[in-house]
Amino acid sequence: MKSNTILHYPLMVVGTVAIDSVETPFGKKDSVFGGSASYFSYAASFFTPVELIAVVGEDFPKEYRKILEERPIGLDHLATVSGKTFHWKGKYGSDLNTAQTLDTQLNVLLEFKPKLKADREPEYLFLANIDPELQMDVLNQVKRPKCKFVVCDTMNFWIEGKRPQLEKVLSRVDMIVINDGEARLLAKEANLIKAARKIQAMGPSTAIIKKGEHGAFLFHGEQFFALPAYPLEEVFDPTGAGDSFAGGVMGYLAKTGDLSFENLKRAVAYGGVVASFTVENFGLERLRTIKDGAIENRLADFRKLCHF
Amino acid sequence: MKSNTILHYPLMVVGTVAIDSVETPFGKKDSVFGGSASYFSYAASFFTPVELIAVVGEDFPKEYRKILEERPIGLDHLATVSGKTFHWKGKYGSDLNTAQTLDTQLNVLLEFKPKLKADREPEYLFLANIDPELQMDVLNQVKRPKCKFVVCDTMNFWIEGKRPQLEKVLSRVDMIVINDGEARLLAKEANLIKAARKIQAMGPSTAIIKKGEHGAFLFHGEQFFALPAYPLEEVFDPTGAGDSFAGGVMGYLAKTGDLSFENLKRAVAYGGVVASFTVENFGLERLRTIKDGAIENRLADFRKLCHF
Repeated sequence: MKSNTILHYPLMVVGTVAIDSVETPFGKKDSVFGGSASYFSYAASFFTPVELIAVVGEDFPKEYRKILEERPIGLDHLATVSGKTFHWKGKYGSDLNTAQTLDTQLNVLLEFKPKLKADREPEYLFLANIDPELQMDVLNQVKRPKCKFVVCDTMNFWIEGKRPQLEKVLSRVDMIVINDGEARLLAKEANLIKAARKIQAMGPSTAIIKKGEHGAFLFHGEQFFALPAYPLEEVFDPTGAGDSFAGGVMGYLAKTGDLSFENLKRAVAYGGVVASFTVENFGLERLRTIKDGAIENRLADFRKLCHF
Repeated sequence: MKSNTILHYPLMVVGTVAIDSVETPFGKKDSVFGGSASYFSYAASFFTPVELIAVVGEDFPKEYRKILEERPIGLDHLATVSGKTFHWKGKYGSDLNTAQTLDTQLNVLLEFKPKLKADREPEYLFLANIDPELQMDVLNQVKRPKCKFVVCDTMNFWIEGKRPQLEKVLSRVDMIVINDGEARLLAKEANLIKAARKIQAMGPSTAIIKKGEHGAFLFHGEQFFALPAYPLEEVFDPTGAGDSFAGGVMGYLAKTGDLSFENLKRAVAYGGVVASFTVENFGLERLRTIKDGAIENRLADFRKLCHF
């Protein structure tokens, strides 16, 4: 399914498209294709057409755009402006759990003002980890209740620097997907179960807390679900795992159109599976080589290894 | 079921019986009844009669012995010798994940030479976290293959200080139950999946890696199972969680007599349930108030929250 044959994108993501430099114990690579919206949309595209809202600079390689064109990813809102593409440089230690950011160059992101075309009416919207004011801009441009499920991510930088703006976004989203450390910071609470309850009280009735190699928690109203990470002997590069996870979750939800707790659980499992592929190579490389049936096979494995 | 009516104990544990001083963010308590064998045997006693091999000093309170007598725990091998009981003093920070040991007084443990009565023939043996030379002493006194499943725990102190002796024990046990940090240290490998494979190659075909609030991994030959921790909003005192977990696992195995992978998974889930009760109060206090059916109810909850 190529993007020029797609009439409607049920899922939309606003976030970053980036050129990363990544160092892991297994190697070092410059000019890795990265960014939250890139990972998210590629991951979601295994389940549903997805439209990407982002900006790049004139240095953005044509080959990278072609990588996105391999999949049912709508690029009408991938703006190219003068200046350089967002650049992130990071390094992982031997435990591969947390990235040390060595450099961030916002570049074209500084002037980014997303403007949705009038005919775009997504049912599912993901506000990836960007400035909460940008998240709100996009949220204000989608039509509710036609857009029935809005989800956001965020990070320490915004929690500490733009809490009031972030709280406004939170009050209007249906779900949040967030790291464990960030959940603790946002809720000012060390216990993750309590932290999630506090975050739910800020707005989103559903919360997913990502715990990296320890899996994820799902909170849906009063209900709770826990999933381990898919076990891998080799984690090559964890960059993009969280965004791929969110892409798998939202892609599956948009595909099935079912927001019940039981289906949210399955969505979290699909998210875990897609993220487990992402970390097996740099950037989007592993996702690009996923064979037909590989996601379903790994999901079946996953079910076996956590049911008793 | 009182211990004086029990003719045979299918499960035996050798370990410590201690008087602890514990400080958590929720309170501070001296003279807490603790020790690996105490937690293990109390936890296992919900499933099967269990015989305890340990030593205490003359200061060991009669009330503590009575606490063990509440349950089907055999105390013929709980020796009282002159001197003071093993004492551990520890403190937990706000994340409650790792204890800081403030003081350890081995006392009567220094001269401990466990001697099994000739008529004791347990089918299941747990070598709790003590000196590997003591573990080997006890292992040499049980009859194989009548004793069909021998399991050990250990800690950093022995991995670093008595690795050759520990490796001898490992070469003769069927299963190891160990913390994640200790597994990494023992295997000299950061990735837990790889670490477990290396540990299995040292002897035990089955390995359980405990990850505290993140649950546990089970490795059985080539097979793998992951279980989250039972979610608690209030962890009061984590002391004894690991030993209670092992007690639940071994108690359930000894009760069912089934060492298949499917039953090992269930045993790990029961271990997680019993440990979740332990941490809800100091020492054995919460385990002492478990009502009929409470373990089964929590297990049913547990299954719901990790199946999809």
